[in-house]
Amino acid sequence: MNNYLITLGKKAKQAARFLGTASTTVKNQALKEIIQQLKMDKPTLLAANQQDILNAKETNLPEAMIDRLLLTSERIDTMCSDIETIIGLSDPIGTVDKMWKNEDDLMIGKQRVPLGVIGIIYEARPNVTTDAASLCFKAGNAIILRGGKEAFHSNQALVTSMQTALEMVELPKECIQLIEDTSRETAKEFMQLNGYLDVLIPRGGAKLIQTVVQTATVPVIETGTGNCHVYVDKDADLKMALEIVINGKCQRPSVCNSTETVVVHEDIADVFLPQLEKALEVFKVEIRADETARKFIKVSTLATEEDFATEFNDFILAVKVVQSLEEAIDHIDTYTTHHSEVIVTENYTTSQTFLKQIDAAAVYVNASSRFTDGSVFGFGGEIGISTQKLHARGPMGLNELTSTKYIIYGNGQIRN
Amino acid sequence: MNNYLITLGKKAKQAARFLGTASTTVKNQALKEIIQQLKMDKPTLLAANQQDILNAKETNLPEAMIDRLLLTSERIDTMCSDIETIIGLSDPIGTVDKMWKNEDDLMIGKQRVPLGVIGIIYEARPNVTTDAASLCFKAGNAIILRGGKEAFHSNQALVTSMQTALEMVELPKECIQLIEDTSRETAKEFMQLNGYLDVLIPRGGAKLIQTVVQTATVPVIETGTGNCHVYVDKDADLKMALEIVINGKCQRPSVCNSTETVVVHEDIADVFLPQLEKALEVFKVEIRADETARKFIKVSTLATEEDFATEFNDFILAVKVVQSLEEAIDHIDTYTTHHSEVIVTENYTTSQTFLKQIDAAAVYVNASSRFTDGSVFGFGGEIGISTQKLHARGPMGLNELTSTKYIIYGNGQIRN
Repeated sequence: MNNYLITLGKKAKQAARFLGTASTTVKNQALKEIIQQLKMDKPTLLAANQQDILNAKETNLPEAMIDRLLLTSERIDTMCSDIETIIGLSDPIGTVDKMWKNEDDLMIGKQRVPLGVIGIIYEARPNVTTDAASLCFKAGNAIILRGGKEAFHSNQALVTSMQTALEMVELPKECIQLIEDTSRETAKEFMQLNGYLDVLIPRGGAKLIQTVVQTATVPVIETGTGNCHVYVDKDADLKMALEIVINGKCQRPSVCNSTETVVVHEDIADVFLPQLEKALEVFKVEIRADETARKFIKVSTLATEEDFATEFNDFILAVKVVQSLEEAIDHIDTYTTHHSEVIVTENYTTSQTFLKQIDAAAVYVNASSRFTDGSVFGFGGEIGISTQKLHARGPMGLNELTSTKYIIYGNGQIRN
Repeated sequence: MNNYLITLGKKAKQAARFLGTASTTVKNQALKEIIQQLKMDKPTLLAANQQDILNAKETNLPEAMIDRLLLTSERIDTMCSDIETIIGLSDPIGTVDKMWKNEDDLMIGKQRVPLGVIGIIYEARPNVTTDAASLCFKAGNAIILRGGKEAFHSNQALVTSMQTALEMVELPKECIQLIEDTSRETAKEFMQLNGYLDVLIPRGGAKLIQTVVQTATVPVIETGTGNCHVYVDKDADLKMALEIVINGKCQRPSVCNSTETVVVHEDIADVFLPQLEKALEVFKVEIRADETARKFIKVSTLATEEDFATEFNDFILAVKVVQSLEEAIDHIDTYTTHHSEVIVTENYTTSQTFLKQIDAAAVYVNASSRFTDGSVFGFGGEIGISTQKLHARGPMGLNELTSTKYIIYGNGQIRN
């Protein structure tokens, strides 16, 4: 085992034990202190980030990646206002979800407690460092961060700043820790740090997430990948359908809840598809369509199996024509990543069948797939969108960063 | 990859999709049919079990293990009445836990859905085969069972009987499947059957559970190991404390919620420990005590670190004397398996501190640790007792065998 990680793990466990029983007031004070410290440390943070940016340019990182890596004074302000939002969220810890009396006259309560120590593995977005840390912290958890090596200096400066703030309010600075060894080997050992990590959450692209799922022996929550579909039913309001598809594809194509494939009922394909093509032209969206769909579309390439399975995260849309609701559900069932799926229909029974049969974190009737988001759902923020079924599914807010314990009040009961 | 397992996995997924939307009536009918079929098949089941028993005797399996393996007509009746209980439980599937309207006027509901396909790895208790299968089935999940090789013929006969019943009510027999290849290699591949298993639950001893945790790449729920403590505070009602310790240790020492260590405050050690020793003598309990405790106990051996860390599951009790509540909490925190922990005290503040600071699935004031059990808690039955924090903690009933999905009713909303 890796002694460095074990030391981090032990300190995190100690900090978690302390933080787990800290009051909401204390936790909010610490978050306020973090905001102040980050603002005060701006020069240091920006200088550290410049080092990362220089390295990135030297190693010819793609422009888009450099942009994600970049910190500016405004971006630090945004990170701070995100923490401000978290301060405003109500603290789930200590809440008793329900309490009942059993046949032995025991009072059994199910109480929210922190998960304990949360590990986050992510790529080169420094804002994840403060976002993840403050959300986990508010739910009473210690956090160990393992960010991408490209953002190392930025992350180090951010964590130092947050730790300084924690010490100011006399909380253990090990509530928030960064793994300073960014080697792959250490990352692998981190994924197998059983006994120290209560859960590991990967945040990033499909490849990172699959590596974590395959390698980890600690409990993992799979997040993120979204191959989302809109099914335009024969009974759809076509104007509404057009708006929902355009919004799903074009409003922000790079994110996981954007729409990747539109499935169209054959009865309305001849009317809907030409309208769709015209609307997509405005955004220069490339269409990859199946043979039937291509009869109604002027410019498109033939969609492959691969296209239907791909999360483009780009201005590309796959189009499939089906003969029935059942065929639509089958297609979605084959290619879904169980993130967000949409039906557009005015038919009551069709909508109910779709809601019942589609297996996804979020199933929509007559709304854009883009709404799957912790803030939109009313959770205030999110650590990611779970696409697995265990523990949490869909946007994970504060509540999903907690566990429960049973507290039992007796008066001398013994079991017969 | 193992083609045999993949075939099983594919069939289970298909069956799960069908079963996931089956009505409560259909599921209960199937369970009734299973009861009838098991009763009808008694001669076949007993004959198959006899084969396992003969093999077990030939390979000199310990008597206790042979007893656990044995099926009798009465034991089959008990298995059937356990299924009867499950029929009586209310079906969580389809229930909307809460529904709210967000700022976009979307109606967002959180609905209970099955987990999908559940894998169970267990040892040589044939009753787990019917228990686990019927509980998972009632919650709409397909199940793949991998039982111990010692019970192979029994399990095969039981699953065949259950599958016959499923076919009678026109449900896919693949709702309940058994892995007929009991090799270790196949077990390992089963633990890594990503894409087919939504969760894997090991049921058995600490060694089995640790192997699964270390090997599995699919999501696992850790169950079972219970190194449970009773802390007898200086303000305890000593008569109550005595009853609670004796019940925890002696009523059924082989199970995970039995008491393994009693932690005693030094102020009452001189009075309590001699009483305890006398009461334990009746059950011939061996005492392993720390040095301070041995001053007040006539016959005992010196407890080692190892003793405090051991789940004896036997008529052995470790005894530790502490100087304060804090030292008691520290001791428990060091050796706990986070299962069930008990304080006996009449002091209000002490009870609240213990409830808050102890990190376990169930924390009791003034009651025996033996109550941690799905039936006792009012869940009707349980698939095991989770000692991890993710997804479920404590006794896992029907509700813990479900996931959720968000169902969202819109009227054309798009995101700005």
